[in-house]
Amino acid sequence: MLTHSFKLVTIIAEPVLEPRITTELRRLGATGFTVVEGRGQGSRALHAAEIPGINVRIETIVPPEVADRIVEYISKQYFADYEVIAYLSDVQVVRGEKYRRAP
Amino acid sequence: MLTHSFKLVTIIAEPVLEPRITTELRRLGATGFTVVEGRGQGSRALHAAEIPGINVRIETIVPPEVADRIVEYISKQYFADYEVIAYLSDVQVVRGEKYRRAP
Amino acid sequence: MLTHSFKLVTIIAEPVLEPRITTELRRLGATGFTVVEGRGQGSRALHAAEIPGINVRIETIVPPEVADRIVEYISKQYFADYEVIAYLSDVQVVRGEKYRRAP
Repeated sequence: MLTHSFKLVTIIAEPVLEPRITTELRRLGATGFTVVEGRGQGSRALHAAEIPGINVRIETIVPPEVADRIVEYISKQYFADYEVIAYLSDVQVVRGEKYRRAP
Repeated sequence: MLTHSFKLVTIIAEPVLEPRITTELRRLGATGFTVVEGRGQGSRALHAAEIPGINVRIETIVPPEVADRIVEYISKQYFADYEVIAYLSDVQVVRGEKYRRAP
Repeated sequence: MLTHSFKLVTIIAEPVLEPRITTELRRLGATGFTVVEGRGQGSRALHAAEIPGINVRIETIVPPEVADRIVEYISKQYFADYEVIAYLSDVQVVRGEKYRRAP
Protein backbone atom coordinates (compact mmCIF):
# COMPACT_ATOMS: atom_id res chain seq x y z
CA MET A 1 0.00 0.00 0.00
CA LEU A 2 1.39 3.40 -0.96
CA THR A 3 2.01 5.61 2.05
CA HIS A 4 3.45 9.08 2.56
CA SER A 5 5.84 10.27 5.25
CA PHE A 6 4.56 12.91 7.63
CA LYS A 7 5.44 14.11 11.11
CA LEU A 8 3.39 13.41 14.20
CA VAL A 9 3.77 16.28 16.65
CA THR A 10 2.91 15.48 20.27
CA ILE A 11 2.51 18.29 22.78
CA ILE A 12 1.95 17.56 26.47
CA ALA A 13 0.75 20.54 28.46
CA GLU A 14 -1.42 21.61 31.35
CA PRO A 15 -5.12 21.63 30.40
CA VAL A 16 -5.53 25.39 30.64
CA LEU A 17 -3.24 25.78 27.63
CA GLU A 18 -5.30 23.54 25.35
CA PRO A 19 -7.46 26.20 23.63
CA ARG A 20 -4.49 28.45 22.98
CA ILE A 21 -2.30 25.67 21.65
CA THR A 22 -4.93 24.14 19.39
CA THR A 23 -5.77 27.54 17.94
CA GLU A 24 -2.07 28.09 17.27
CA LEU A 25 -1.79 24.66 15.60
CA ARG A 26 -4.45 25.70 13.12
CA ARG A 27 -2.75 29.00 12.47
CA LEU A 28 0.61 27.30 11.92
CA GLY A 29 -0.83 24.95 9.30
CA ALA A 30 -2.31 21.87 10.98
CA THR A 31 -5.56 20.60 9.43
CA GLY A 32 -6.70 18.78 12.58
CA PHE A 33 -5.68 17.50 15.97
CA THR A 34 -6.65 15.07 18.71
CA VAL A 35 -6.57 15.51 22.46
CA VAL A 36 -6.29 12.83 25.14
CA GLU A 37 -6.29 13.53 28.86
CA GLY A 38 -3.67 12.03 31.14
CA ARG A 39 -1.50 12.72 34.10
CA GLY A 40 2.22 12.75 34.66
CA GLN A 41 5.31 13.95 36.39
CA GLY A 42 8.04 15.97 34.78
CA SER A 43 11.57 16.72 35.74
CA ARG A 44 10.50 19.73 37.79
CA ALA A 45 8.10 17.70 39.91
CA LEU A 46 11.09 15.72 41.11
CA HIS A 47 12.13 18.70 43.16
CA ALA A 48 8.65 19.89 44.01
CA ALA A 49 5.60 18.36 45.56
CA GLU A 50 5.79 15.05 43.65
CA ILE A 51 2.07 15.24 42.96
CA PRO A 52 1.27 13.87 39.54
CA GLY A 53 -0.31 16.63 37.47
CA ILE A 54 -3.22 16.40 35.08
CA ASN A 55 -2.24 17.11 31.51
CA VAL A 56 -3.50 17.01 27.95
CA ARG A 57 -1.73 15.27 25.11
CA ILE A 58 -2.36 17.15 21.87
CA GLU A 59 -1.38 15.40 18.65
CA THR A 60 -1.37 16.52 15.06
CA ILE A 61 -0.04 15.03 11.83
CA VAL A 62 1.55 17.61 9.55
CA PRO A 63 4.14 18.00 6.78
CA PRO A 64 7.73 18.29 8.06
CA GLU A 65 7.96 22.05 7.52
CA VAL A 66 4.80 22.64 9.54
CA ALA A 67 6.13 20.35 12.29
CA ASP A 68 9.25 22.48 12.50
CA ARG A 69 7.21 25.65 12.79
CA ILE A 70 5.04 24.17 15.53
CA VAL A 71 7.92 22.88 17.63
CA GLU A 72 9.81 26.13 17.28
CA TYR A 73 6.75 28.13 18.27
CA ILE A 74 5.88 25.91 21.24
CA SER A 75 9.40 25.93 22.60
CA LYS A 76 9.76 29.71 22.35
CA GLN A 77 6.31 30.42 23.73
CA TYR A 78 6.05 27.94 26.57
CA PHE A 79 9.27 26.19 27.58
CA ALA A 80 10.50 28.95 29.87
CA ASP A 81 7.36 29.31 31.96
CA TYR A 82 5.38 26.08 31.61
CA GLU A 83 6.15 22.41 31.92
CA VAL A 84 5.32 21.75 28.27
CA ILE A 85 6.82 18.88 26.29
CA ALA A 86 6.88 18.70 22.49
CA TYR A 87 8.31 15.95 20.33
CA LEU A 88 8.23 14.71 16.76
CA SER A 89 8.01 11.24 15.31
CA ASP A 90 7.79 9.84 11.81
CA VAL A 91 4.52 8.37 10.61
CA GLN A 92 3.29 6.95 7.35
CA VAL A 93 -0.19 7.95 6.22
CA VAL A 94 -2.37 6.82 3.34
CA ARG A 95 -3.93 10.03 2.14
CA GLY A 96 -1.40 12.79 2.41
CA GLU A 97 -3.79 15.52 1.32
CA LYS A 98 -5.72 15.16 4.57
CA TYR A 99 -2.80 16.60 6.50
CA ARG A 100 -1.76 19.31 4.10
CA ARG A 101 -3.54 22.65 4.13
CA ALA A 102 -4.67 23.74 0.69
CA PRO A 103 -2.48 26.65 -0.44
CA MET B 1 18.77 -5.70 24.47
CA LEU B 2 17.62 -7.52 21.34
CA THR B 3 14.53 -5.96 19.83
CA HIS B 4 12.45 -6.67 16.75
CA SER B 5 10.92 -4.18 14.31
CA PHE B 6 7.16 -4.11 14.08
CA LYS B 7 4.55 -1.60 12.97
CA LEU B 8 2.28 0.33 15.29
CA VAL B 9 -1.03 1.03 13.57
CA THR B 10 -3.08 3.89 15.01
CA ILE B 11 -6.69 4.35 13.96
CA ILE B 12 -8.71 7.35 15.14
CA ALA B 13 -12.44 6.99 14.61
CA GLU B 14 -15.81 7.87 16.02
CA PRO B 15 -16.71 5.64 18.99
CA VAL B 16 -19.57 3.87 17.22
CA LEU B 17 -17.06 2.23 14.88
CA GLU B 18 -14.93 0.70 17.65
CA PRO B 19 -16.52 -2.78 17.81
CA ARG B 20 -16.46 -3.18 14.04
CA ILE B 21 -12.88 -2.01 13.68
CA THR B 22 -11.50 -4.09 16.54
CA THR B 23 -13.24 -7.19 15.19
CA GLU B 24 -11.69 -6.49 11.80
CA LEU B 25 -8.25 -6.03 13.35
CA ARG B 26 -8.48 -9.55 14.78
CA ARG B 27 -9.63 -10.95 11.46
CA LEU B 28 -6.79 -9.22 9.60
CA GLY B 29 -4.17 -10.73 11.90
CA ALA B 30 -3.73 -8.52 15.00
CA THR B 31 -3.20 -10.42 18.26
CA GLY B 32 -4.38 -7.56 20.47
CA PHE B 33 -5.20 -3.88 20.60
CA THR B 34 -5.64 -0.97 23.00
CA VAL B 35 -8.25 1.78 22.98
CA VAL B 36 -7.99 5.26 24.48
CA GLU B 37 -10.77 7.83 24.38
CA GLY B 38 -10.13 11.37 23.25
CA ARG B 39 -11.56 14.24 21.30
CA GLY B 40 -10.45 16.15 18.26
CA GLN B 41 -11.10 18.18 15.20
CA GLY B 42 -10.37 17.04 11.69
CA SER B 43 -10.08 18.83 8.41
CA ARG B 44 -13.81 18.57 7.79
CA ALA B 45 -14.70 20.22 11.09
CA LEU B 46 -13.00 23.34 9.81
CA HIS B 47 -15.88 23.87 7.45
CA ALA B 48 -18.58 22.52 9.74
CA ALA B 49 -19.75 23.26 13.23
CA GLU B 50 -16.26 23.46 14.76
CA ILE B 51 -17.42 21.35 17.67
CA PRO B 52 -14.64 19.03 18.81
CA GLY B 53 -15.81 15.46 18.40
CA ILE B 54 -15.34 12.56 20.73
CA ASN B 55 -13.21 9.81 19.25
CA VAL B 56 -11.43 6.58 20.04
CA ARG B 57 -7.79 5.92 19.34
CA ILE B 58 -7.30 2.24 18.54
CA GLU B 59 -3.72 0.95 18.47
CA THR B 60 -2.26 -2.39 17.52
CA ILE B 61 1.28 -3.68 17.02
CA VAL B 62 1.59 -6.03 14.08
CA PRO B 63 4.06 -7.37 11.52
CA PRO B 64 4.51 -5.06 8.50
CA GLU B 65 2.41 -7.20 6.16
CA VAL B 66 -0.51 -7.16 8.59
CA ALA B 67 -0.13 -3.39 9.01
CA ASP B 68 -0.45 -2.99 5.25
CA ARG B 69 -3.60 -5.11 5.17
CA ILE B 70 -5.15 -3.13 8.01
CA VAL B 71 -4.43 0.29 6.53
CA GLU B 72 -5.65 -0.77 3.12
CA TYR B 73 -8.85 -2.19 4.60
CA ILE B 74 -9.53 0.85 6.80
CA SER B 75 -8.98 3.30 3.98
CA LYS B 76 -11.24 1.44 1.56
CA GLN B 77 -13.94 0.81 4.13
CA TYR B 78 -14.14 4.11 5.96
CA PHE B 79 -12.30 7.01 4.38
CA ALA B 80 -15.09 7.97 1.98
CA ASP B 81 -17.87 8.18 4.55
CA TYR B 82 -16.28 8.67 7.94
CA GLU B 83 -13.68 10.98 9.41
CA VAL B 84 -11.30 8.11 10.15
CA ILE B 85 -7.53 8.53 10.36
CA ALA B 86 -5.04 5.68 10.12
CA TYR B 87 -1.28 5.86 10.29
CA LEU B 88 1.75 3.65 10.77
CA SER B 89 4.90 4.10 12.78
CA ASP B 90 7.94 1.94 13.47
CA VAL B 91 8.35 0.39 16.90
CA GLN B 92 10.86 -1.98 18.45
CA VAL B 93 9.48 -4.72 20.66
CA VAL B 94 11.16 -7.29 22.86
CA ARG B 95 9.11 -10.40 22.25
CA GLY B 96 8.08 -10.50 18.65
CA GLU B 97 5.96 -13.62 19.00
CA LYS B 98 3.40 -11.68 21.06
CA TYR B 99 2.42 -9.70 18.01
CA ARG B 100 2.48 -12.44 15.42
CA ARG B 101 -0.50 -14.72 15.00
CA ALA B 102 0.44 -18.41 15.03
CA PRO B 103 0.05 -19.75 11.49
CA MET C 1 14.98 23.70 14.16
CA LEU C 2 17.68 21.65 15.87
CA THR C 3 16.33 18.49 17.44
CA HIS C 4 17.87 15.56 19.30
CA SER C 5 17.08 11.86 18.95
CA PHE C 6 15.67 10.14 22.00
CA LYS C 7 13.64 7.02 22.67
CA LEU C 8 9.99 7.00 23.62
CA VAL C 9 9.27 3.99 25.82
CA THR C 10 5.62 2.92 26.02
CA ILE C 11 4.52 0.44 28.66
CA ILE C 12 0.96 -0.89 28.74
CA ALA C 13 0.04 -2.63 31.97
CA GLU C 14 -2.79 -3.30 34.38
CA PRO C 15 -3.47 -0.26 36.61
CA VAL C 16 -2.33 -1.95 39.82
CA LEU C 17 1.23 -1.98 38.47
CA GLU C 18 1.39 1.77 37.80
CA PRO C 19 3.01 2.93 41.07
CA ARG C 20 5.64 0.19 40.95
CA ILE C 21 6.51 0.78 37.32
CA THR C 22 6.69 4.58 37.56
CA THR C 23 8.92 4.31 40.64
CA GLU C 24 11.17 1.94 38.70
CA LEU C 25 11.28 4.32 35.73
CA ARG C 26 12.67 7.03 37.99
CA ARG C 27 15.20 4.64 39.46
CA LEU C 28 16.32 3.51 36.01
CA GLY C 29 16.99 7.06 34.87
CA ALA C 30 13.76 8.61 33.53
CA THR C 31 13.23 12.29 34.41
CA GLY C 32 9.46 12.17 33.94
CA PHE C 33 6.55 10.16 32.58
CA THR C 34 2.93 10.47 31.50
CA VAL C 35 0.05 8.10 32.10
CA VAL C 36 -3.14 7.69 30.06
CA GLU C 37 -5.92 5.27 30.89
CA GLY C 38 -7.35 2.95 28.30
CA ARG C 39 -8.64 -0.52 27.71
CA GLY C 40 -7.61 -3.36 25.50
CA GLN C 41 -7.33 -7.00 24.64
CA GLY C 42 -4.09 -8.89 24.42
CA SER C 43 -3.19 -12.19 22.90
CA ARG C 44 -4.12 -14.05 26.08
CA ALA C 45 -7.62 -12.60 26.12
CA LEU C 46 -8.23 -14.39 22.85
CA HIS C 47 -8.33 -17.65 24.71
CA ALA C 48 -9.93 -16.29 27.87
CA ALA C 49 -13.09 -14.41 28.66
CA GLU C 50 -12.75 -11.88 25.82
CA ILE C 51 -13.61 -9.06 28.21
CA PRO C 52 -11.62 -5.97 27.35
CA GLY C 53 -9.39 -5.06 30.29
CA ILE C 54 -8.68 -1.67 31.73
CA ASN C 55 -5.05 -0.66 31.40
CA VAL C 56 -2.66 2.23 31.80
CA ARG C 57 -0.30 3.46 29.11
CA ILE C 58 2.85 4.78 30.72
CA GLU C 59 5.20 6.77 28.49
CA THR C 60 8.63 8.24 29.06
CA ILE C 61 11.21 9.88 26.83
CA VAL C 62 14.76 8.83 27.67
CA PRO C 63 18.24 8.47 26.17
CA PRO C 64 18.74 5.17 24.26
CA GLU C 65 20.78 3.52 27.01
CA VAL C 66 18.09 4.25 29.59
CA ALA C 67 15.44 2.90 27.20
CA ASP C 68 17.39 -0.34 26.94
CA ARG C 69 17.59 -0.66 30.72
CA ILE C 70 13.87 -0.01 31.11
CA VAL C 71 12.77 -2.51 28.48
CA GLU C 72 15.12 -5.16 29.83
CA TYR C 73 13.88 -4.61 33.37
CA ILE C 74 10.19 -4.62 32.41
CA SER C 75 10.50 -7.76 30.34
CA LYS C 76 12.35 -9.69 33.06
CA GLN C 77 10.12 -8.46 35.85
CA TYR C 78 6.67 -8.68 34.31
CA PHE C 79 6.43 -10.56 31.04
CA ALA C 80 6.15 -14.01 32.59
CA ASP C 81 3.29 -13.23 34.98
CA TYR C 82 1.50 -10.17 33.67
CA GLU C 83 0.08 -9.10 30.36
CA VAL C 84 2.50 -6.19 30.06
CA ILE C 85 3.59 -4.72 26.73
CA ALA C 86 6.67 -2.54 26.26
CA TYR C 87 7.94 -0.98 23.06
CA LEU C 88 10.34 1.67 21.85
CA SER C 89 10.05 4.28 19.16
CA ASP C 90 12.29 7.08 17.91
CA VAL C 91 11.36 10.67 18.71
CA GLN C 92 13.01 14.03 18.11
CA VAL C 93 12.93 16.52 20.95
CA VAL C 94 13.99 20.13 21.20
CA ARG C 95 15.66 20.34 24.57
CA GLY C 96 17.55 17.16 25.20
CA GLU C 97 18.59 18.07 28.72
CA LYS C 98 14.99 17.72 29.88
CA TYR C 99 15.15 13.98 29.34
CA ARG C 100 18.62 13.29 30.62
CA ARG C 101 19.23 12.91 34.33
CA ALA C 102 22.08 15.08 35.62
CA PRO C 103 25.06 12.80 36.38
